[in-house]
Amino acid sequence: MNAKTVIEEILKEKGSIKQVYWVACGGSLIDLYPAHFMLNAESATIESGWYTSKEFILSTPKKLGKNSLVVMCSHSGNTQESVDAAVLAKEAGASVIALTDGKGSKSDDPRFIAWVYPWGDGVPTAEVPSGITLLLAAELIKAQEGFDKYDALCDGIKKMDGIVAAAKTKVNAELGDAFAKACQENNFFYILGSGANFSQTYGFAICSLMEMQWQNCSYIHSGEYFHGPFEVTENGVFYFLQMGSGKCRPMDERALTFLKTHTDRLMVLDTLEYGMDAVDLSVRDYLDSVLLYAMNVELRAARGKVFDHSPDIRRYMGIEKY
Amino acid sequence: MNAKTVIEEILKEKGSIKQVYWVACGGSLIDLYPAHFMLNAESATIESGWYTSKEFILSTPKKLGKNSLVVMCSHSGNTQESVDAAVLAKEAGASVIALTDGKGSKSDDPRFIAWVYPWGDGVPTAEVPSGITLLLAAELIKAQEGFDKYDALCDGIKKMDGIVAAAKTKVNAELGDAFAKACQENNFFYILGSGANFSQTYGFAICSLMEMQWQNCSYIHSGEYFHGPFEVTENGVFYFLQMGSGKCRPMDERALTFLKTHTDRLMVLDTLEYGMDAVDLSVRDYLDSVLLYAMNVELRAARGKVFDHSPDIRRYMGIEKY
Repeated sequence: MNAKTVIEEILKEKGSIKQVYWVACGGSLIDLYPAHFMLNAESATIESGWYTSKEFILSTPKKLGKNSLVVMCSHSGNTQESVDAAVLAKEAGASVIALTDGKGSKSDDPRFIAWVYPWGDGVPTAEVPSGITLLLAAELIKAQEGFDKYDALCDGIKKMDGIVAAAKTKVNAELGDAFAKACQENNFFYILGSGANFSQTYGFAICSLMEMQWQNCSYIHSGEYFHGPFEVTENGVFYFLQMGSGKCRPMDERALTFLKTHTDRLMVLDTLEYGMDAVDLSVRDYLDSVLLYAMNVELRAARGKVFDHSPDIRRYMGIEKY
Repeated sequence: MNAKTVIEEILKEKGSIKQVYWVACGGSLIDLYPAHFMLNAESATIESGWYTSKEFILSTPKKLGKNSLVVMCSHSGNTQESVDAAVLAKEAGASVIALTDGKGSKSDDPRFIAWVYPWGDGVPTAEVPSGITLLLAAELIKAQEGFDKYDALCDGIKKMDGIVAAAKTKVNAELGDAFAKACQENNFFYILGSGANFSQTYGFAICSLMEMQWQNCSYIHSGEYFHGPFEVTENGVFYFLQMGSGKCRPMDERALTFLKTHTDRLMVLDTLEYGMDAVDLSVRDYLDSVLLYAMNVELRAARGKVFDHSPDIRRYMGIEKY
């Protein structure tokens, strides 16, 4: 599959796309956020919506129709509410791209433009949902209205693989043990981030920590932090700050300045110190999250080792009926 | 000020509105969410975006222009990043409504359509931001494309004052003491909700509890709960579930079923048991949040009494420079 060809064929059939709805659950929904964020910032013609699948079904946007594109993602391919959302969208006349790692799954269905992606160590960013969705959005903007950041984005996606590889070594050397220790010393803590990266702030909390480590935590938007949440900050409360490298960085910098003097338990992961300076400034906001996801994976593994809790263990998901 | 007249004048000047951007910080941002949610579900012609003010400034939507309406809200009227966002929008050619309680504040500025609202006990829902924003959205949909739920929504807004008054007595009798005790017994807990109500799930966490009670907590979307966060659920972990009364309710019901058998510390606030059955089903999704906000206020006050911590106390906001 190829993003350019997929978008060309959709536009040939539909003429134009007026809305893109990004629909998935949990970890898959998180992967779709940066492309949604980029469309909102960069497109003059396309509306973008981002929905957890069940809410898309229960409170379906009235505009959903022939000129809508729904990008659904289900890693296993069998997340029922995501499949149902895709069917609902198809029946409303929308074009539906279904991203899945599950060949032969319910998402790998001829009613959808099924895109089965590979997964695992060494698979390039361009071939997994976080990269595919950015490429789909970029091709759509480019084809429909022109996109002056297209080349920078494609170049950035290519660079991410090398950046991530180097950053894995660095984060394990610099933060891995300290993060695991912080989890031992804090039953609960806060993770902060902003912009498109807020998806990985949320993702670090709900996927890497709550789901995979049974670690209590919360996630706060760095910009919103000063409008309520900061009142809970004091010595003894642990904060993990994800700092972006793009235009949204000032929100993270403001949080950093405050946190430095208001808690004695602070850990910072600054994407600018993890290789993002190699990416063009104009697209860093959309690519930081690829790096942050990889860092979340390393840090949960580091915690898992110290707690003897493999990130693969589940007690409810896929085990109980719910 | 009157929502109908304001929208009529904007449409007279602009012809049509293509985008509405709801822009504010913290508690004010929370108040804008149900109107944003309603526009997405109910409008066939208007795109809706919801932004914390600084992110709107740093990652401004490319579509912002003459046919955009920006609804900014700052309770004090002097939230600098919200005022800056409003000025930015005005300079881009957008119509800007500035909602504020602060007469003579920076938001009460002739460059904006300044709407100074009253605040305090006994002020009707229709006259505060949670009601005003729904009315603005409803008038806009009605004028531009027709809105078959308009009468039901207006009727519902009128009914909310009586519903809230009765619910205050009920929540204090039934949940007040128990909630305060739960806060004593749990250093940290989770709040769940979905749909437009998720704004008050977030609001209960970041405003009522983190800001006003220095209470650690986290907020989880009921639909997302099953895609990661539920793995952290076990006996001894306290959950507060806000159940909606509208179309999104199935997400909360599913969470309830699971929580009932997976933790021994659960508190439920079911809006259907607090008077929402009096509101037409078609608009309950947009009005539950008015009730939930009022319940958050009562519950934080109940906690405040037991902890001898007035909800008016701040240690950083408006005190330190940040």
